Amino acid sequence: MAHFITLEGGEGSGKTTQARLLVDYLKAQGIAARFTREPGGAPGAEILRDMLLHGAHEFSAEAEVMLHFAARAEHVARLIRPALAAGECVVCDRFFDSTMAYQGFGLGADRAAIAVLSGVIGLVPDVTFVLRVSPDIAAARMARRAGVSDRYEARDAAFHGRVADGFADIAAHNPDRCVVINADEAVADVHAAIVAALVARAA
Amino acid sequence: MAHFITLEGGEGSGKTTQARLLVDYLKAQGIAARFTREPGGAPGAEILRDMLLHGAHEFSAEAEVMLHFAARAEHVARLIRPALAAGECVVCDRFFDSTMAYQGFGLGADRAAIAVLSGVIGLVPDVTFVLRVSPDIAAARMARRAGVSDRYEARDAAFHGRVADGFADIAAHNPDRCVVINADEAVADVHAAIVAALVARAA
Repeated sequence: MAHFITLEGGEGSGKTTQARLLVDYLKAQGIAARFTREPGGAPGAEILRDMLLHGAHEFSAEAEVMLHFAARAEHVARLIRPALAAGECVVCDRFFDSTMAYQGFGLGADRAAIAVLSGVIGLVPDVTFVLRVSPDIAAARMARRAGVSDRYEARDAAFHGRVADGFADIAAHNPDRCVVINADEAVADVHAAIVAALVARAA
Repeated sequence: MAHFITLEGGEGSGKTTQARLLVDYLKAQGIAARFTREPGGAPGAEILRDMLLHGAHEFSAEAEVMLHFAARAEHVARLIRPALAAGECVVCDRFFDSTMAYQGFGLGADRAAIAVLSGVIGLVPDVTFVLRVSPDIAAARMARRAGVSDRYEARDAAFHGRVADGFADIAAHNPDRCVVINADEAVADVHAAIVAALVARAA
């Protein structure tokens, strides 16, 4: 069984729902598992999450990338590594692929630098589920969501198209790590596809 | 004439005083010059400076390093690069060598990662003055300083010794960029030594 599992995808892909369902599934199998998410996931990282998603200051693209990696470094040091060391399976909603897709592909930040920073983090997921969703279905799901949108959700369709292209590119270049999942289907069907892929990898 | 000049050294080395005197000297020669300092130097970077020096949360060593580089990326993007592009000489009190000395040598953070992050910043000083000061003289200068000490100033003598060793190591490994200055002398003498070294490099 993979120990560090990440779920990636654009807005409305259902990542968060699927990550929580996966944790429930693992626990039902008697596997110690925990859900976490980025940006954030640890107290210091949450301070940075709030600054990135809702802060008044608009950082330069370069600084924004570094701040995401600072939050990630804190999350890895304070939560992910200790949990893995304790034998827990960690299911994380977004990890470094999101920085590449959103800041690199979406905002045009330096992709080579993002790749270098990912290496500095020193932790690679055992498996990454990339949830691919049609723009119309994603938009319909987002429209049903309550509350205030964050700095990224609020961007235009062209941005979200570049992000989707970014995730497709990442999956294509990391075929051993990434499993692309059709996330247009109903929640239960997407969950079943994720579980089937996980079992197939473990077999 | 060098365009991007950094001053480095431990607490009580007189960096800030010397950086300001150098800017005054350059202006007196008719050279457009500006003083700046790290961490901080731009509005977003100052938010991070406050978090790093006086914040309630103690970040992991890895995240602390990334936060210093996030502040640096913001400073470079918002102030240093635009000033250099406008033909100004930028004199900066601390730059990436301080992260290597304080976090790398002083706190034991991953030095290879700090070197990689310095490369991601994509800007290397044209000349770096490394101010070397005897521990006793540094301590006497610090004792005369008013106000509250920050997170780094407040650390013990062993820490400050490792930082001093770090700066010596950096200077030894970057002889083309770094000029070591004996900062035990009086302010005017240290200033004269810096100016002499700068003129010698430009000649």
